[in-house]
Amino acid sequence: MTSIAEPPKTHDFAEHENHHLEFAPSAVLTPSPSTQNGHPYRTSSSLRRTRSALGLHPSAPIYEDHDTHERQKLLWSRIRIVLREPFVEFWGTFIMIMFGDGSVAQVLLSTGQTTAPGGNGFGPYQSISWGWGLGVMLGIYVAGDSGAYLNPAITFSNCIFRQLPWRRFPMYFTAQLLGGFVGSGVVYANYISAIDWFEGGHGIRTVPPATKATAGIFCTYPQPFVTKASQFFSEFIASALLMFVIFALKDPSNNGVPRSDKWFPLCLFFLIFGLGACFGWETGYAINLARDFGPRLMSYAVGYGPEVWSAGGYYFWIPMVAPFCGCAFGGFLYDLFIYTGPSPVNTPWLGLKYIFQPRYAWEARKEHLRREREEGIV
Amino acid sequence: MTSIAEPPKTHDFAEHENHHLEFAPSAVLTPSPSTQNGHPYRTSSSLRRTRSALGLHPSAPIYEDHDTHERQKLLWSRIRIVLREPFVEFWGTFIMIMFGDGSVAQVLLSTGQTTAPGGNGFGPYQSISWGWGLGVMLGIYVAGDSGAYLNPAITFSNCIFRQLPWRRFPMYFTAQLLGGFVGSGVVYANYISAIDWFEGGHGIRTVPPATKATAGIFCTYPQPFVTKASQFFSEFIASALLMFVIFALKDPSNNGVPRSDKWFPLCLFFLIFGLGACFGWETGYAINLARDFGPRLMSYAVGYGPEVWSAGGYYFWIPMVAPFCGCAFGGFLYDLFIYTGPSPVNTPWLGLKYIFQPRYAWEARKEHLRREREEGIV
Amino acid sequence: MTSIAEPPKTHDFAEHENHHLEFAPSAVLTPSPSTQNGHPYRTSSSLRRTRSALGLHPSAPIYEDHDTHERQKLLWSRIRIVLREPFVEFWGTFIMIMFGDGSVAQVLLSTGQTTAPGGNGFGPYQSISWGWGLGVMLGIYVAGDSGAYLNPAITFSNCIFRQLPWRRFPMYFTAQLLGGFVGSGVVYANYISAIDWFEGGHGIRTVPPATKATAGIFCTYPQPFVTKASQFFSEFIASALLMFVIFALKDPSNNGVPRSDKWFPLCLFFLIFGLGACFGWETGYAINLARDFGPRLMSYAVGYGPEVWSAGGYYFWIPMVAPFCGCAFGGFLYDLFIYTGPSPVNTPWLGLKYIFQPRYAWEARKEHLRREREEGIV
Amino acid sequence: MTSIAEPPKTHDFAEHENHHLEFAPSAVLTPSPSTQNGHPYRTSSSLRRTRSALGLHPSAPIYEDHDTHERQKLLWSRIRIVLREPFVEFWGTFIMIMFGDGSVAQVLLSTGQTTAPGGNGFGPYQSISWGWGLGVMLGIYVAGDSGAYLNPAITFSNCIFRQLPWRRFPMYFTAQLLGGFVGSGVVYANYISAIDWFEGGHGIRTVPPATKATAGIFCTYPQPFVTKASQFFSEFIASALLMFVIFALKDPSNNGVPRSDKWFPLCLFFLIFGLGACFGWETGYAINLARDFGPRLMSYAVGYGPEVWSAGGYYFWIPMVAPFCGCAFGGFLYDLFIYTGPSPVNTPWLGLKYIFQPRYAWEARKEHLRREREEGIV
Repeated sequence: MTSIAEPPKTHDFAEHENHHLEFAPSAVLTPSPSTQNGHPYRTSSSLRRTRSALGLHPSAPIYEDHDTHERQKLLWSRIRIVLREPFVEFWGTFIMIMFGDGSVAQVLLSTGQTTAPGGNGFGPYQSISWGWGLGVMLGIYVAGDSGAYLNPAITFSNCIFRQLPWRRFPMYFTAQLLGGFVGSGVVYANYISAIDWFEGGHGIRTVPPATKATAGIFCTYPQPFVTKASQFFSEFIASALLMFVIFALKDPSNNGVPRSDKWFPLCLFFLIFGLGACFGWETGYAINLARDFGPRLMSYAVGYGPEVWSAGGYYFWIPMVAPFCGCAFGGFLYDLFIYTGPSPVNTPWLGLKYIFQPRYAWEARKEHLRREREEGIV
Repeated sequence: MTSIAEPPKTHDFAEHENHHLEFAPSAVLTPSPSTQNGHPYRTSSSLRRTRSALGLHPSAPIYEDHDTHERQKLLWSRIRIVLREPFVEFWGTFIMIMFGDGSVAQVLLSTGQTTAPGGNGFGPYQSISWGWGLGVMLGIYVAGDSGAYLNPAITFSNCIFRQLPWRRFPMYFTAQLLGGFVGSGVVYANYISAIDWFEGGHGIRTVPPATKATAGIFCTYPQPFVTKASQFFSEFIASALLMFVIFALKDPSNNGVPRSDKWFPLCLFFLIFGLGACFGWETGYAINLARDFGPRLMSYAVGYGPEVWSAGGYYFWIPMVAPFCGCAFGGFLYDLFIYTGPSPVNTPWLGLKYIFQPRYAWEARKEHLRREREEGIV
Repeated sequence: MTSIAEPPKTHDFAEHENHHLEFAPSAVLTPSPSTQNGHPYRTSSSLRRTRSALGLHPSAPIYEDHDTHERQKLLWSRIRIVLREPFVEFWGTFIMIMFGDGSVAQVLLSTGQTTAPGGNGFGPYQSISWGWGLGVMLGIYVAGDSGAYLNPAITFSNCIFRQLPWRRFPMYFTAQLLGGFVGSGVVYANYISAIDWFEGGHGIRTVPPATKATAGIFCTYPQPFVTKASQFFSEFIASALLMFVIFALKDPSNNGVPRSDKWFPLCLFFLIFGLGACFGWETGYAINLARDFGPRLMSYAVGYGPEVWSAGGYYFWIPMVAPFCGCAFGGFLYDLFIYTGPSPVNTPWLGLKYIFQPRYAWEARKEHLRREREEGIV
Repeated sequence: MTSIAEPPKTHDFAEHENHHLEFAPSAVLTPSPSTQNGHPYRTSSSLRRTRSALGLHPSAPIYEDHDTHERQKLLWSRIRIVLREPFVEFWGTFIMIMFGDGSVAQVLLSTGQTTAPGGNGFGPYQSISWGWGLGVMLGIYVAGDSGAYLNPAITFSNCIFRQLPWRRFPMYFTAQLLGGFVGSGVVYANYISAIDWFEGGHGIRTVPPATKATAGIFCTYPQPFVTKASQFFSEFIASALLMFVIFALKDPSNNGVPRSDKWFPLCLFFLIFGLGACFGWETGYAINLARDFGPRLMSYAVGYGPEVWSAGGYYFWIPMVAPFCGCAFGGFLYDLFIYTGPSPVNTPWLGLKYIFQPRYAWEARKEHLRREREEGIV
């Protein structure tokens, strides 16, 4: 990464994106021999400009041996390449929510049904751990390990600590939120007659702590005895764990982690399953704005009423704010104690200069943007 | 796939089969040095003709380093090579049904048995998710990742979107249906005395919603409160999810999916487990004609009576039709938003010309067949 | 395997052992350059003779890059190399039984305990599926994938269909049986005070169908309503499934199975879990003489009385005989319909000549032994 | 390992550390070409001296392609490299305890809650097996497979049998113990309001066998009917199993274990899950001083009272002592019967000379230290 042949760099971080998102600019600008015969660029220059304008990396993250040249003549194919990351983040989040909210729906609505095989409903609480765990796993497969991980708080933390440019954030955020909204809407559509049956009448929709409440299918509501501080702490600590372990799993200096990313989705299954089994009771382990706010909006839209906002003492803002704080803290801890690669924490003053000396931060930013323009990876 | 050295092609899809089924014709026709010493062809030309006549690929999908020449002198060995795919699809589906229906049988028949270790039957509902999930996983291992995946709807979707020739469909379909029929028959034979015991008398066989019904062991019956539209939607959406995720897992342009197919069966375990845990309640997640209609026929044959057809308001046709619609829709969504490879969706008008302009489709078809004949991969 | 350079062979099976046990004789007899400097042979010739006399392969199955030369000067190290396979089979079976019988003990003895976290005992029936599944998985890791798989019926089937020489059988069988006996003894020792507590008095030991019976911890007893024929069929079909899937997972011609053996132990976890969840109710899925008869003998020895033999209508012989029949049948089915490699089924008359023409079998046997002597792999 | 080119060695063990911890001294002292251009040493010589003084290996276990040169100018980065192993062991144990104790907390505190989805609490006993299993798995990922495995007894056993130098022990031990203490403290902080609610009042803290005791969340308490001898035996046998299987999984001579360490964390998930499902009832499978004594100290500190020590007949010392005995015995068994590599057991008299002839041991030790000084790997 810092061999002598490369131009000297003053900071050793901040000029590259997250390592698994990295497409060397030279590989893109200079056609490789195998693509020269009439297929000059994998991502053509007009597509690259459009992608940059949207805040995305100029090159779309498509496996490099995969030739997409020919199909780029079609308008829709061009749109699909331009919007690659938003599309995959949308569908990844969609899949995650389908399985996650779907598992809650099945467990909650069939509670105690004696006609089930086994005589006690179609799945216990543990089924929900499975649903979210495998939903995240399959969502990551669909999203192609984009590095943004179906969660704005993780995108946020990657922007702070792993040089994911901030201009990527808006598109990722929008796609994730929409994925949560639409995914939970499809779950609602699928279970609408079962919800009517469970709530006891057509169109009745209630929110916890009502006895037959079904709003908990879509977004999280805290246990009644948990104080506001405990609510925040529970979401904060779960998010910090999430980020800490993900950074460990993606750490190229870490001896025990497979170099390839093949194991990553399976590890995330275990991680999310664990959060559900160990920190899922008090507040329902939202740990993700897209997973909680998106479906909450949807449930408000389909008629669960203003209680979706007021329940639990206006709890709704906690799973919006706490994941960002928690993920940032978890990432900070990992970088402070273990990570030896490029990170703001591995700069003078543990990177706190960026926070406490605005002028220092501003100049580092200007320098960073200047260099990026030079290298053409705007 | 479309390098300059190859003959020019007007369409970039439709001349190759599914990429993991592909056997380059040249490798078959021209003997490689290592096979020239008296072992001219892996699949001899007469076998190739017979296989073509049955609608199969001329070369049998056998791992290429595996020499089968010597044993091809025996009649049965020749039959086994000719019928390779039907045989493996049959046994793959058989294994899937054995574990799937077996798990339902064990859970349903032992419901509430207090003499069980643990005091509450031999497995809860979740055991069924395990059974189907691992049944599909092991079935895929047995079937050698043939690309047809033990499900006519997936075969169908591969024909539409992944250039699996339509003439393959009948043999695959037949083998899958037979596998479902025979597999469920063996489960019935295994549990026959337990069914007698559970139903309360020798030869009594009832269908849900009867209290002691055991027909649900073999095929699916909907929950009583689910409307016809919801029944269809539930099967449709589960099938669409199935196809969407399988296409993601098999997408060579997808950055996050391992190139090798080693992970595929394990991922399918999680996918099927998830469908059982999240969308398995309302209609029992048949999502597969071979898994539902085959065993239904079997249960009718052994004496469950005409209620197997009439139950749930003649529900039986839904798990026959909905999986085809759902898989086609899921595949369409994936190709529309993510897939950058050869697919009808990646042609002008998103491929809808094939549907709305019959003449266009007819000519593309003729052109396609002409080229195949030239290349000898009939 | 049958290249021209090798000496001509009349049968294409029966001269090599199971492919993953294979150590090319030349590699052993002719020192490779890297071992010539004073370390002439990995397994010295006197060790090789002793191993042959015991019916084992002359070379011990030790990973070939692992140098054991120096330590072969010690007596015990020599014994350990001579008895490599019996030792690893013993400990593999021991580990399997520890986890398997241990899980039954914990679930059965803690049934309904309300002081447990969760309020209902320390594990449901499903815990037993986990215990046996992961016991087999870890046992295979310990046993170093020896090909004999901790089960005499699988060893038997490998002798019939995969050229494992019959003279290997006695040592493998003895080691497996002892592993089962000793392993279950340690489980008994571990749970002895809990068994006293559960049975209701020091030294009381009862056998199902007694209300507080604990004999079911160690070996299997059938459900009361299952007829003798169903008992046999249930064990038979589960054993056939076991062998069929293992042969698929080890089939080098099978396209969908990873070439390396890395996935094998994990797949066996799913396979054994599935047998427990799907065919574990009626007879307890013994499918293994070493797992059932070894512990049964142990439970008889520690005082469970003659009922361990007479219970279930002298059921004890079924899990001794049925696994051998079932595994042989399952292996036959796989070879008949899918396997294209060397197997008796892939010889004239589907190999039935070996059964119905004793003279033909005798001559093939003599020819086979003559060739082995020539090649020095006695 | 013992090629002719290397200097002759009198013992074939004891001069190298555990094989997966090994950093060839030459690679560190002699700069490789790629690091010569101004980046002379990966771990600079002053850092190496400091690490040696702390009892750690001179080179920090950082993946060797990962360049950390530039950031070594910062003070904190230098500290982090010096304290690499203690930091990763601390956080690995922390993660393990967070998930492990977290799962017990959630299951125990929510026992029987009817408002849960599924109607019966937020997880059954099995959830605890999941929590500890995946906690160990993720902890190993975080700890970078350091070979110390988050457990002083395993570190101890590696010192005895796998040439991990004894001077490593104190730092590893301290880090693990602190990880357990701090991790359980965070779990306590997270569940504090739930504990108040469960115990029935603010600040009430009770220890088993009190009806509403919550001390069992943090450390283990035995079942009331288990005798002292059975308590010890239960912990002993579980620890022996743990060590036996870990040594098998790390054995380079073992044919069936993948050469790479990729599978190791997943296998540990199954192993720990199995210990919880099969040997977790009588004494709670502490099998680890850091997991039991650390949290016990924490629970004493936050006010659970002296009963944390006196409960179960002053049980607390058993999970401190038994794991060391058990792991040593398990390691001894593995080396005695299976391991063919360098181990004290593979020396004359099975290594018992080291125990029964102090003078022999003393001289071997001196010789060993002399050689290490010569090679510069103090």
